[in-house]
Amino acid sequence: MGIDRTKIRWNGWGWAAHKDDLADREDLWAWLAAELGMPALLATPGRAFEELSLPPCALSLEDRHGLNGIVGVEHVRDDAYERAFHALGRSYYDLLRLRAGDLSLAPDAVIYPRGTEEVLTILAFAAARDIAVIPYGGGTSVVGGVSGSRGGFKKAITMDLSAMDRVIDVDTVSGTATAEAGIAGPALEKALEAKGFTLGHTPQSFEFSTLGGWIGHRGAGQGSNRYGRAEDWLVGAKLATPRGLLATGDVPASAAGPQLKDLVLGSEGIFGIVTEATIRVHSRPEVSDYRGYLFHDFESGMAAIRAAMQEDVSATMLRLSDAGETRFYRAYGRIGKKRTISHRLSDLYLEMRRFDDKACALIAGFEGRGKAASSARRQFDAIARRFGALALGHRMGERWQQGRFQAPYLRDPMMDRGVGLDTLETAASWSKLGALYAATRAALKTAILQTVPREGAKGIVMCHVSHSYPDGASLYFTYIFPRALDSDIAQWKAIKKAATDAIVANGGTVSHHHGVGEDHAPWIAQEKGMLGIEALRAVKTALDPSGILNPGKLLPR
Amino acid sequence: MGIDRTKIRWNGWGWAAHKDDLADREDLWAWLAAELGMPALLATPGRAFEELSLPPCALSLEDRHGLNGIVGVEHVRDDAYERAFHALGRSYYDLLRLRAGDLSLAPDAVIYPRGTEEVLTILAFAAARDIAVIPYGGGTSVVGGVSGSRGGFKKAITMDLSAMDRVIDVDTVSGTATAEAGIAGPALEKALEAKGFTLGHTPQSFEFSTLGGWIGHRGAGQGSNRYGRAEDWLVGAKLATPRGLLATGDVPASAAGPQLKDLVLGSEGIFGIVTEATIRVHSRPEVSDYRGYLFHDFESGMAAIRAAMQEDVSATMLRLSDAGETRFYRAYGRIGKKRTISHRLSDLYLEMRRFDDKACALIAGFEGRGKAASSARRQFDAIARRFGALALGHRMGERWQQGRFQAPYLRDPMMDRGVGLDTLETAASWSKLGALYAATRAALKTAILQTVPREGAKGIVMCHVSHSYPDGASLYFTYIFPRALDSDIAQWKAIKKAATDAIVANGGTVSHHHGVGEDHAPWIAQEKGMLGIEALRAVKTALDPSGILNPGKLLPR
Repeated sequence: MGIDRTKIRWNGWGWAAHKDDLADREDLWAWLAAELGMPALLATPGRAFEELSLPPCALSLEDRHGLNGIVGVEHVRDDAYERAFHALGRSYYDLLRLRAGDLSLAPDAVIYPRGTEEVLTILAFAAARDIAVIPYGGGTSVVGGVSGSRGGFKKAITMDLSAMDRVIDVDTVSGTATAEAGIAGPALEKALEAKGFTLGHTPQSFEFSTLGGWIGHRGAGQGSNRYGRAEDWLVGAKLATPRGLLATGDVPASAAGPQLKDLVLGSEGIFGIVTEATIRVHSRPEVSDYRGYLFHDFESGMAAIRAAMQEDVSATMLRLSDAGETRFYRAYGRIGKKRTISHRLSDLYLEMRRFDDKACALIAGFEGRGKAASSARRQFDAIARRFGALALGHRMGERWQQGRFQAPYLRDPMMDRGVGLDTLETAASWSKLGALYAATRAALKTAILQTVPREGAKGIVMCHVSHSYPDGASLYFTYIFPRALDSDIAQWKAIKKAATDAIVANGGTVSHHHGVGEDHAPWIAQEKGMLGIEALRAVKTALDPSGILNPGKLLPR
Repeated sequence: MGIDRTKIRWNGWGWAAHKDDLADREDLWAWLAAELGMPALLATPGRAFEELSLPPCALSLEDRHGLNGIVGVEHVRDDAYERAFHALGRSYYDLLRLRAGDLSLAPDAVIYPRGTEEVLTILAFAAARDIAVIPYGGGTSVVGGVSGSRGGFKKAITMDLSAMDRVIDVDTVSGTATAEAGIAGPALEKALEAKGFTLGHTPQSFEFSTLGGWIGHRGAGQGSNRYGRAEDWLVGAKLATPRGLLATGDVPASAAGPQLKDLVLGSEGIFGIVTEATIRVHSRPEVSDYRGYLFHDFESGMAAIRAAMQEDVSATMLRLSDAGETRFYRAYGRIGKKRTISHRLSDLYLEMRRFDDKACALIAGFEGRGKAASSARRQFDAIARRFGALALGHRMGERWQQGRFQAPYLRDPMMDRGVGLDTLETAASWSKLGALYAATRAALKTAILQTVPREGAKGIVMCHVSHSYPDGASLYFTYIFPRALDSDIAQWKAIKKAATDAIVANGGTVSHHHGVGEDHAPWIAQEKGMLGIEALRAVKTALDPSGILNPGKLLPR
């Protein structure tokens, strides 16, 4: 029955029980302070839940009674924890507000439907009574996709789909599965594994995020080079709208007009709520081989990825860190460790091979049948060598695999120490990627310098190529900066604006896999053009005429 | 400057100069008569162009003057040939009407724009003056996609894009190309070949059909297993609408909401006119290896294709004929030839290997780099043997390659002899495919029996799996029948209705690669549901508020 919400942090990332290894690592904080040009990093804890107050619940007794009648009183929750938990998603901007105790966007109640029919009934009820409805899967949006904004409505409920987590059917002949949209990554993979299959969709939020969320924001997992993006693996979906059910069908391919599933993909809950989906699954891989390479610079690493994609090498993942990210993780990994002889030998060897501070690490993953995976690995190996790379063996790959869902946990202890950490990502064609990288990086660096709390302070801006295609790739930026504690939100907005302006100006998309939400909505008209926005608004009006669904997301205000 | 329309048949398929090898093959006609249960096949020629009359041109002098001012008088054509040529597409239903001299749907004029700006200006002009606009690429639609229906409008012009045939840019770094939408297959491939690339999109209409048409009807070429469908290779498009230009961008992948290119794909000119497109291209293949296999029956052949797709074998084409089609082409190929010893030996060998009249031929194509293509071929070879197939070597594959664009030429000489030939196609998931095949085939057989012109007459119904996916495949039906000369159109409608009803009832799509047009529009609401249709209508209204674009296509009346 879904993940118990009390087991998940309400104002941070992930499991409440997650052990925070960093809090007491003073060596690490001292190192980070120096990197950020700060004299020290002081404690800046978020406010305790007990201190906070929620806006009064705006639902009338009649509203409550109606909702109770549809889903049962035990599935209509309006206790403080449930409302606070669902107030916002998990973007940096969301966490700033949650940690400051701003629960002004908390929904009036949280509804846990148990099937498509209930969702349809709630939507019709809410439309008739002018109640905004915010669809909610794992709540892991990092772009403001689930915040409780009400648009012009006085009342809002969050529809938490986590109780709709059944796998309805696995069609072993067609290699497809049908599941309810509220199922989270591990439960879905477990059910598929029992039949010998995998979806292979592993975003960093995998432990919490849901099938419906992946579809709703057009997501991509870490292994999308092999397993595809949501639009590649989605066969069909049921979309519950205030006007009834839209079922997109389940054919493998069709020339029967524009495909309705393409309107569902990326619709972020503004057209309707995905309640069920049929997805393409794969035989479980016999082999999962992840290894490291070191390139002399970012350009040669990107060239190798481009060659691999254009020469049809079936890699599962090719993840290339830029020089800054490579240096950061190397230094980070060595903090508090003695500089061993082995470290010194490896440094010496790299120097001999002329790898300097421009060197870039790449992690390559190969999954599938044994023969195919090793053939792909050999092909990539040859390409990497062609571009001057050094093969580093399995250790780096294994370490990455072990920690693949852990990175989001870094943000909370940093925020507890006056340090901001945020990520953003984009994609462009290969011929635009170099300029996009340089411009976005420069914009981030400059905006951070302009918003740091003291002179001499600075940020760390890192990037990696995370997903690649024959015609282009995505860039994933991580930036760390000293928080301007008095103007935290203005600081984040200034940095975000500078970076996104640079992205749009350089031919990048505002998001490759995070989505639009509220955070990217101000730029969406620039990406899609006003006619494009009007076309999407027309669909919205056709399916949700009163506009109750997920106000403020995706479309410009 | 495009293909001279006088070089193409106005009431049949392809080049006017194409030599018709069948007309005098009395041995063939005698054989076909016997197969169809007819005593003889008599001549039933279409009416001569000179006999026909066209409806008067409804454009006012002011309309003419305005159009002349936009594109120049030499690009506004209203001579009888141009109007007749553009009256209809090339579906069986279209040919019935053209051959009978029914030119009632001829447009009032044919406009040849030379760029996006001209298209935009014409659309704004037409919208202001209530002139319907029919977009036209190669005119090869076999589903009524370009017929000159006017909806409620009194005036109609056809916008023939064949003069917009430039390749604007080849981005050799990103592996993409940008071209005007009116370019036909051979010109596009020639320009790409000069830079070492290919698109690899080869529908049977390849010689005439255009980039814009392929996008507009969401087409798939014969090699789509490798080169992808239009939705796989389209990066972005410019769509000229009566309200202005919609440009969909050119990023390799994006999570920034529903993708506008997905609204362009399959929109069949009802939202706007594709004027330019950026497409993913591939390095030209080093190897092109096509060969034949013989399976004991359709089921084992389908199982082999399914295994190949689900085991990631990179075939370019896997084309499996059912027993009827296998027998038909075998018999057809032997007509008028002496039964040689080699024929008899091969028959004997097949009998020994227990291949009987259930045997099914498969043509497998493998293209790409030498090593990759031969590895894929070996993988498929092993799968084929696993399912009991006999490898037949290259001859069948080479013959198929030589004749790959010739099949559509068979229809005209048949229609000249009182024989109808039509095709239709669908797709479904593997678990539904067997029932879909049986039901559609039975529906076709029954409907033909019910509409033949005399007792004892019957049809020939054949099928092949033409395109395949991990989760399903397409079925391509060819049916040949004695024409009911007095009620030709009613006969076709009855057969079409029976087959399409069966397709929809059995989980197939109304089209896998031909499109919807006017012929499938009556079933589209069943496939998409009324809410889905309303969503598409909303987009139509947003982009083409006066509804001038391609009336009667895609959406139900």
